[in-house]
Amino acid sequence: MSRVLIAQGGGPTAVINQSLVGAVIQSRGAEAVDAVYGAMHGVRGIVDEDFIDLTREPRGTLERVAETPGSALGSTRDKPDEAYCKAILEVLRAHGITVFFYIGGNDSSDTLRILSAQAAKAGFDLACIHIPKTIDNDLMVNDHTPGYPSAARFVANAFAGINRDNAALPGVYVGVVMGRHAGFLTAASSALRTGDDGPHLIYLPERAFDMDGFVGDVKATYDRLGRCMVAVSEGIQDDAGEPIAAKLAKELEKDAHGNVTLSGTGALADLLTGAIKESTGISRVRGDTFGYLQRSFLGCVSDVDRGEARAVGVEAARFAEAGNTEGSVTIHRTADYQVEYRLSPLEEVAGKTKVMDDAFISASGTDVTDAFADYLRPLLGSQIPVLAGFGPERVAKILNK
Amino acid sequence: MSRVLIAQGGGPTAVINQSLVGAVIQSRGAEAVDAVYGAMHGVRGIVDEDFIDLTREPRGTLERVAETPGSALGSTRDKPDEAYCKAILEVLRAHGITVFFYIGGNDSSDTLRILSAQAAKAGFDLACIHIPKTIDNDLMVNDHTPGYPSAARFVANAFAGINRDNAALPGVYVGVVMGRHAGFLTAASSALRTGDDGPHLIYLPERAFDMDGFVGDVKATYDRLGRCMVAVSEGIQDDAGEPIAAKLAKELEKDAHGNVTLSGTGALADLLTGAIKESTGISRVRGDTFGYLQRSFLGCVSDVDRGEARAVGVEAARFAEAGNTEGSVTIHRTADYQVEYRLSPLEEVAGKTKVMDDAFISASGTDVTDAFADYLRPLLGSQIPVLAGFGPERVAKILNK
Repeated sequence: MSRVLIAQGGGPTAVINQSLVGAVIQSRGAEAVDAVYGAMHGVRGIVDEDFIDLTREPRGTLERVAETPGSALGSTRDKPDEAYCKAILEVLRAHGITVFFYIGGNDSSDTLRILSAQAAKAGFDLACIHIPKTIDNDLMVNDHTPGYPSAARFVANAFAGINRDNAALPGVYVGVVMGRHAGFLTAASSALRTGDDGPHLIYLPERAFDMDGFVGDVKATYDRLGRCMVAVSEGIQDDAGEPIAAKLAKELEKDAHGNVTLSGTGALADLLTGAIKESTGISRVRGDTFGYLQRSFLGCVSDVDRGEARAVGVEAARFAEAGNTEGSVTIHRTADYQVEYRLSPLEEVAGKTKVMDDAFISASGTDVTDAFADYLRPLLGSQIPVLAGFGPERVAKILNK
Repeated sequence: MSRVLIAQGGGPTAVINQSLVGAVIQSRGAEAVDAVYGAMHGVRGIVDEDFIDLTREPRGTLERVAETPGSALGSTRDKPDEAYCKAILEVLRAHGITVFFYIGGNDSSDTLRILSAQAAKAGFDLACIHIPKTIDNDLMVNDHTPGYPSAARFVANAFAGINRDNAALPGVYVGVVMGRHAGFLTAASSALRTGDDGPHLIYLPERAFDMDGFVGDVKATYDRLGRCMVAVSEGIQDDAGEPIAAKLAKELEKDAHGNVTLSGTGALADLLTGAIKESTGISRVRGDTFGYLQRSFLGCVSDVDRGEARAVGVEAARFAEAGNTEGSVTIHRTADYQVEYRLSPLEEVAGKTKVMDDAFISASGTDVTDAFADYLRPLLGSQIPVLAGFGPERVAKILNK
């Protein structure tokens, strides 16, 4: 018999619980499985033996959890070292766990890679299967990752609404979007544009950021259109690769993975709007940091994402059932639009970062290409709202003062 | 024959175009009306003679515009003085306008009050009807105002999602919500809470804000729950009535109405999270400023709000048709849940500010009451998502280290 443990790591998403529920239900249906446990707060809950038994959790509860954003099992930023991994394996052995599913991004897959290697060395027969998740969309091998399409839909909807707001009360608007190394989420700000809609400028971590160039671009757009909307990745870097936000932070707050905290502060947006005001004399300059709103917003899910997030969980359980002992479930686009799921070696995904392809970024470096639009469109799902305004025709003036 | 002009003032909302379209369609149906014009960018477009002719605008376009957030005619923050009003009246006369609908909040209704008085003094037969709109929900006489329910739904959904996020990765979270003088929108952060869900503390402009008390409240909640979520109004004031954000701003940016700009900067959230970090030693402290996202977000509209926003536009046209020459369309709750629309004298609404009733604020001053929950619930509309998590039962520990 086999016993399954599942956990969630890293930043929550709007659909990560779909993957959890997919893996739980599929595992429960396997003849060889006698129990399915969930570890609370990722690997932290394993060393703490903090498990819940999902073996007979009512299907109705599971389906409601699946529709709830955030990580229902809790999450962690812990990155296990050798001693931590040893403690994990000891607990897994004690509880008779033979299959471990870890839902997460590059850090979580790397944890799994280390764990899998240590288990093999210790002669412990443990299947380690990674289930992909990240709004950053930065996992290697994958066409895209569950969580990204829903966050992209949120960012697209937010910019589409703010674009109408900014057209009504013209000025400069800067929206700072999540994405440490990859600009995919920031680029999604472009998805619902038509005509002169914003964002008119998009700054990605894939291109070196220069403050003078930025201010000049904003000024030129403002002079041309009477307004300017800008989407900026929180991860923008100077030409030496240092994040602009990191330069800012007086005290660099770092998590256990050595990542600098870029979210949860409005400092970058304020720096950029301040620079624009100072250099251009434009008076109405506003900045927002999308922060945690974009990660787990309730009620703005892509139905394509919902389905795929469920599927990667189901597929992980199937791969385990088929006897695979390690790997990451990866998503591959096979047609426009169709995907298939494969099991890729952990080392191809673990700890690596995918960034935007050059073909997705315009020659100017401050916009996306049609190729990116084609890539993104099917991911956003159905029921995309259509926006409308009035035409340019005017009533003839009479006084003409 | 009568000729109608309609304009939009102040901050856009997700449903302000419903009111526009309601008034346009109803006016076009009136036998006495020979033309319906729209002024671009509020009163600014009147003095500039910047009009579009909506008399034969296709119904399909109007309905698509109605579903689009933001102000389709553009908006303005201009507050006309005597000379400005004189210029407005001159243009209205020249174009034969006999009915003027202005969709907006307290500032827009005040503009209309001044204009109506000046027209009367000049012997100009002009009907001035105010159509209510504001996400701040701070118009006198009204039970609530169009725009508020949809913004409230956005804030409620955002906090519900971030609450799950914060439960997964515990820490302190501060979300700053719009609302210059009235806490209604910030209070909406409470709408989807159950059990130990956040926000655990809610700071409203109706209660004096004290930094030491704030930090102490956060610390106490964190000690009790291991996390703390806070909703803060951008308009929080000290006991002398000075906005905390205003103290912060090095250069107080004011609009033409003398209002200090509170949005479009992350400074308040950063000030509050900084104070918590400094005084409590809690390491994971994050702050977001909801900013412009909450005002015109695409795809998060309350269907109750959508219907009422349309209705106040339709009613305004009916009141004009019936021969009324001045007034503000007001919303009155007559049952749970039913409303009726009345025409109230402009002076009862113009330039005044409604704040939250004491019965809506808890004795502690940092939460809302059941009475507020009962007030808000029907406004949020249908299809409110149900969130779910797992129960507290745990698998028995084996190693028990």
